[in-house]
Amino acid sequence: MTKLEELVEFHEITQLKYRYVRALDTHDWKLMEQCFTEDAHAWFAGGKQTERGRANIVKLLHRLVPSNLVSSHVVMHPELTLTAPTTATGIWRMQDSVYFQGPNPAFAHGNIQGGEAMFGAGYYHEEYRKERDGWKISSIGYVRIFEVIERGAIGQGVELSVEPSRGMRT
Amino acid sequence: MTKLEELVEFHEITQLKYRYVRALDTHDWKLMEQCFTEDAHAWFAGGKQTERGRANIVKLLHRLVPSNLVSSHVVMHPELTLTAPTTATGIWRMQDSVYFQGPNPAFAHGNIQGGEAMFGAGYYHEEYRKERDGWKISSIGYVRIFEVIERGAIGQGVELSVEPSRGMRT
Amino acid sequence: MTKLEELVEFHEITQLKYRYVRALDTHDWKLMEQCFTEDAHAWFAGGKQTERGRANIVKLLHRLVPSNLVSSHVVMHPELTLTAPTTATGIWRMQDSVYFQGPNPAFAHGNIQGGEAMFGAGYYHEEYRKERDGWKISSIGYVRIFEVIERGAIGQGVELSVEPSRGMRT
Repeated sequence: MTKLEELVEFHEITQLKYRYVRALDTHDWKLMEQCFTEDAHAWFAGGKQTERGRANIVKLLHRLVPSNLVSSHVVMHPELTLTAPTTATGIWRMQDSVYFQGPNPAFAHGNIQGGEAMFGAGYYHEEYRKERDGWKISSIGYVRIFEVIERGAIGQGVELSVEPSRGMRT
Repeated sequence: MTKLEELVEFHEITQLKYRYVRALDTHDWKLMEQCFTEDAHAWFAGGKQTERGRANIVKLLHRLVPSNLVSSHVVMHPELTLTAPTTATGIWRMQDSVYFQGPNPAFAHGNIQGGEAMFGAGYYHEEYRKERDGWKISSIGYVRIFEVIERGAIGQGVELSVEPSRGMRT
Repeated sequence: MTKLEELVEFHEITQLKYRYVRALDTHDWKLMEQCFTEDAHAWFAGGKQTERGRANIVKLLHRLVPSNLVSSHVVMHPELTLTAPTTATGIWRMQDSVYFQGPNPAFAHGNIQGGEAMFGAGYYHEEYRKERDGWKISSIGYVRIFEVIERGAIGQGVELSVEPSRGMRT
């Protein structure tokens, strides 16, 4: 494969990742399902939240990102490597800004009661596989650099307004 | 058009978008003008601020981003589609960090008196047209995911220093 | 050089820049060294911190980013130009989020005692040279748009947790 042909594959993988993030922040779980291989593996929060299989991973994400959680995840700095014509690995920088509008028991370590703002950064470490209908995530996980929680942020001087369509045209 | 030829067009469109954001945050309204088709259409803030025609759009942006407003807009996750050899559509994630150093009546809904910090996220939904001198924005708009306003942020524990050149080499 | 061949070079330069940022935030000074030409020139903070030569630049970066400083630098919007087959220039938008866990005398202007949170934005203005083992940074500098310092942020309502591996898989 030439370097130019590699660029096309890298482009397709970035498109996959951008759809993943859009599905996450717009709570589009149907779109999210299309991002994974059936046998995918997930290990979020440095391995604190793990799951196997597409359906289970989407359920876990839905639990972690319920409808009263408002978020903007952004991914940057893709360092992608083709390990074979149909497999690849990637490292991405991630930053997330999260506002909890209610308790969140799935968010295990933070004792989230509602009103918290969270800001964090880290790296996604991923694997991809090219299937009949394009590239899919076969393994996903992230390790944080840091995480900051501000208790009672919403309401105490901070006014949060949320767009019901979460950024999508209606 | 091959996938490789598409990559070249996508690259040119990203360069256009980066110039747009650079013009916005460095207040370079001459550069901003070069980013639009003459008949461009704008619908900012989910349609609360609309305008038609390059000159009018640049005037609106200038009103929304006066010299006492300091901002960093960032755009990521381009999902671009060529709809014809000379037309394209795009979705981008956006995040903006804004500091108001004085009242801002053009910012309609926020009752901005000066001293506020704002942080937000959303999606740009855009259309592009390739003209003699390259790709231009023919339609631009965004819908927010959320917006956070912190009143009286500047001065209350938060020290803001602004570079007069706004990031450009002088 | 065709536009497609240029894309390959641009891709390589972005990979270099992503490694630079990863080296910075994970404190991987060995990786950092591989990012520069031997005769590189650095002018950080609009020229307040300057240095010549790869070894000296890495020492300066190490001083500016000691082990008790936790950061997420992100770079976006690359506007790259090939000035010859083996030289190029670039402008990047930068944003940094920094938490100081102790005094930082190298950070000259901020009177950093520990506990401060910092958030800033600006532009990197860079030059690159292609050597035997790939593209390297030959000149690097940035000018800020703005910088915000929040004194005593850590502890006063803000809980900071830091991952010892700083985002890398261990």
